[in-house]
Amino acid sequence: MTDIAAIHSAAARMAGHVRETPLLNAPLLDRLAGRRIFVKAECLQITGSFKARGGWSAVSALSPEARKRGVIAYSSGNHAQGVAYAAAAHASPCVILMPSDAPQVKIANTRAYGAEVVLYDRAAADRDAMGASLSQDRGLTLIRPYDDPLVIAGQGTVGIELARQAAAAGITEAEVLVCCGGGGLSSGIALALEAHAPRLKLRTAEPEGFDDMARSLTSGKHERNARVSGSICDAILTPTPGTLTLPILQRLAGKGTVITDDQALQAVALAFTHLRIVLEPGGAAALAAAVFTKDLPDTVIAVVTGGNVDPGTFRTALERFA
Amino acid sequence: MTDIAAIHSAAARMAGHVRETPLLNAPLLDRLAGRRIFVKAECLQITGSFKARGGWSAVSALSPEARKRGVIAYSSGNHAQGVAYAAAAHASPCVILMPSDAPQVKIANTRAYGAEVVLYDRAAADRDAMGASLSQDRGLTLIRPYDDPLVIAGQGTVGIELARQAAAAGITEAEVLVCCGGGGLSSGIALALEAHAPRLKLRTAEPEGFDDMARSLTSGKHERNARVSGSICDAILTPTPGTLTLPILQRLAGKGTVITDDQALQAVALAFTHLRIVLEPGGAAALAAAVFTKDLPDTVIAVVTGGNVDPGTFRTALERFA
Repeated sequence: MTDIAAIHSAAARMAGHVRETPLLNAPLLDRLAGRRIFVKAECLQITGSFKARGGWSAVSALSPEARKRGVIAYSSGNHAQGVAYAAAAHASPCVILMPSDAPQVKIANTRAYGAEVVLYDRAAADRDAMGASLSQDRGLTLIRPYDDPLVIAGQGTVGIELARQAAAAGITEAEVLVCCGGGGLSSGIALALEAHAPRLKLRTAEPEGFDDMARSLTSGKHERNARVSGSICDAILTPTPGTLTLPILQRLAGKGTVITDDQALQAVALAFTHLRIVLEPGGAAALAAAVFTKDLPDTVIAVVTGGNVDPGTFRTALERFA
Repeated sequence: MTDIAAIHSAAARMAGHVRETPLLNAPLLDRLAGRRIFVKAECLQITGSFKARGGWSAVSALSPEARKRGVIAYSSGNHAQGVAYAAAAHASPCVILMPSDAPQVKIANTRAYGAEVVLYDRAAADRDAMGASLSQDRGLTLIRPYDDPLVIAGQGTVGIELARQAAAAGITEAEVLVCCGGGGLSSGIALALEAHAPRLKLRTAEPEGFDDMARSLTSGKHERNARVSGSICDAILTPTPGTLTLPILQRLAGKGTVITDDQALQAVALAFTHLRIVLEPGGAAALAAAVFTKDLPDTVIAVVTGGNVDPGTFRTALERFA
């Protein structure tokens, strides 16, 4: 089980290797949205997404022998880069299974960190079986993208920083919107806020048609998405909430928010204009929710999660909305 | 005269209103450049450029009476927004003279901060005469973009942060490249580094054809540019170094670096891909110098200065270089 002690322990292991990201805001964005919006900019994290935290947390906790044998992960790209970065820094061999339709920049960067990338067809191949076979053959440790206590603890370090930064900015009460795939980041942040800033209340942000977490929080059981691809928010498309993450969020999170692909692209453009940060659409879902959701309080915090975006997608966002 | 005490005093006045910007780096950018590059990201400053520092420093030092009468500034855009932001926060009326060919986003943002924008023709009008007449009529205090001790002190707060952040990152010796127009930021940083990190040596970065500072540092007297427009680096096109700034830089700066417009655009694309920050071409000059200059040490710090860029220019950078 992940608890606040595990999150602090992960924070101690990653000091000096994973970056404290800034909490940004912009007067002109606030005026446009009609509320105060603070943005925790995890796109500025060392590998361009918060996933470096969970990757570092998991790899740094391995025994020397396991580290030497190596690690394996499957990911559309951000978890891949996070694990590859952490593995390289620990001199640990690293195999990454990536869907062949993942953004080119994510595949290229994962290789550049020194990982061996194995591509698979998202619709046809059995990713889990491929991963199991590879890890058995080579003795690799599988690092799951969200349903892993060490990964949740690593992502939870965002929440420790956020509690401190919000207090420093004089934010005593707010809703915290978090881009949500399987719920690793959301559940980690929720645990950290429960301990250090209980008046900051977490809500997940997901793309329309891929709102498995929002529906699961409502129904109280694991709901599934009809599809696993087909949104521009590739980073946060997962079939169903994690086994470890859903119970944490049932206890601690508010009602899930849902945004459209166009709202995500619009948030990419708003972040470009007002915050001067680069977001990928999936990483901008929380900002889209902060700007476009109706039932929000005067002060919200959006945890924007990644900035590894193909230039063509970014140009489209600017052409349409900037 | 600006000294280190004036810089610390400016830092104290701006606490809570001007942001400490992060020092970023990216393993894949280092590999590509063949050296360690750290980036002080002033594009993440509250108004999208370091100019909020100088603006705040100057406005916050005014007497209550002068504050009530108001301030005036002339600027292609970033100083405009910095002064407009500071004036609004001090309830001080604000007039900004802007060249009519300034980027639309800068004109729009300056107005959005509540300033009265007066446009002039960069080639035909006498900006200084217009400013003098307006300030006399209304009793406005002129806030010069760089040749003002309070503005230099405000910009120098970048150097205080940088000295602390470099020490925390274990950087004991480096060259610090700074995007340079009139030299306000460069001279302020140079003074701060002299006091707090004397082994970090400053060098200016300017666009080809507008290298008045580099030539002035070589010749020892005020050299002028042949033109005042015609580079994509609009933020840093000034006719000649400041009267106050040149002597400081003659004493403290190394040889100036010069980059091309294409290198600036390429740096915009590199910052997009590897650092996930949005830069304007003039604000990327220091990063261009850090990547493309030959005679640099193993570790360099680039102070990137602004991110207020028209979407079309940014799309061009991505189309050509990302």
